[in-house]
Order: sequence, then structure tokens, then C-alpha cells
Amino acid sequence: MYKGKVHVTLKKGVLDPQGDAVKRSFHVLGYKGVDDVRVGKYIEVKLDEKSKEAAYRLLVEMCDRLLANPVIEEYQVEVVEVE
Amino acid sequence: MYKGKVHVTLKKGVLDPQGDAVKRSFHVLGYKGVDDVRVGKYIEVKLDEKSKEAAYRLLVEMCDRLLANPVIEEYQVEVVEVE
Repeated sequence: MYKGKVHVTLKKGVLDPQGDAVKRSFHVLGYKGVDDVRVGKYIEVKLDEKSKEAAYRLLVEMCDRLLANPVIEEYQVEVVEVE
Repeated sequence: MYKGKVHVTLKKGVLDPQGDAVKRSFHVLGYKGVDDVRVGKYIEVKLDEKSKEAAYRLLVEMCDRLLANPVIEEYQVEVVEVE
């Protein structure tokens, strides 16, 4: 069994309204030193695959098809073995 | 300048409707080997602080006050120096 760890983040230059809202909240709470905030998704996927390589290939395909919007998002994938 | 990398995830045992929905979508797309999916937040915060330790302490405080719901979520914080 393998666990895929996927980070889906907005591409550079893409506006992040959610991140801006969090930044404003920090400023309201008095955290003036906050310069920028970017909010993305962190997804853990448990995969019943035969090998780490097979799990990795599958996860990349799943990112392309479902987890990330290729127009505005990019993703990073890591696979670890679990019991 | 420092960059905080924050992972906010649901605590063990807390139901994850979003994760379940993603899992069902994977099964519909034919990815039967998907055993479990957990969806969380990945937040990057740029901080203008004097030291890495100060940035870390501030980020933990910000997680406790705004970024994570202590009842159902837990968080992990990492700080790196950036230009």
C-alpha cells in the first residue's frame, strides 16, 4: 500500500482571492509583517498498487485528470510506502 | 524575509466529505485502487520577521488564531528563509 502526497497550488501570477482574504484578516488581527499569503490544496491518497513507480505514475495521471486545473494550477507529487 | 509552509489537515477520525467525494470520483473514472482520500489546506505565508525562530513562533500563533480549527484540524509548520 502506498500513500500519495499531492500539493496543488496556483501558478505564479494567478490571482489568489482566498490568499488575499487571509492576508487581510492577518492584518486586521495585527500581524502587519505578513507580506503575502497563497492558499492551495494538500491531498493524501492511499493507493493499493504493486510498486512505488506504478503508484507515482497513477497519481500523476489522477492529478492531470481530476485534482489540478492545468490552466491555473500546478502540482507536486510524492509517494511513500505505508502498511 | 521568511516563508512559512503550513499544512492544515483533518484530525484522525474526523469525517472528510470532500475526501469521500474525490474518492468516489476516482472510482467513477476507473481508479479502483484508491483506498482513501483526505483533503486539507496548504498555505504559504511570507513573513517579514527578524529571525527564523520569531517567524516560526508567529506562524504557530497565526495557525492557532486563524488558519486551523482546533476542534477538527491539526497543523504542521515549516519555515524557510527566502530573498
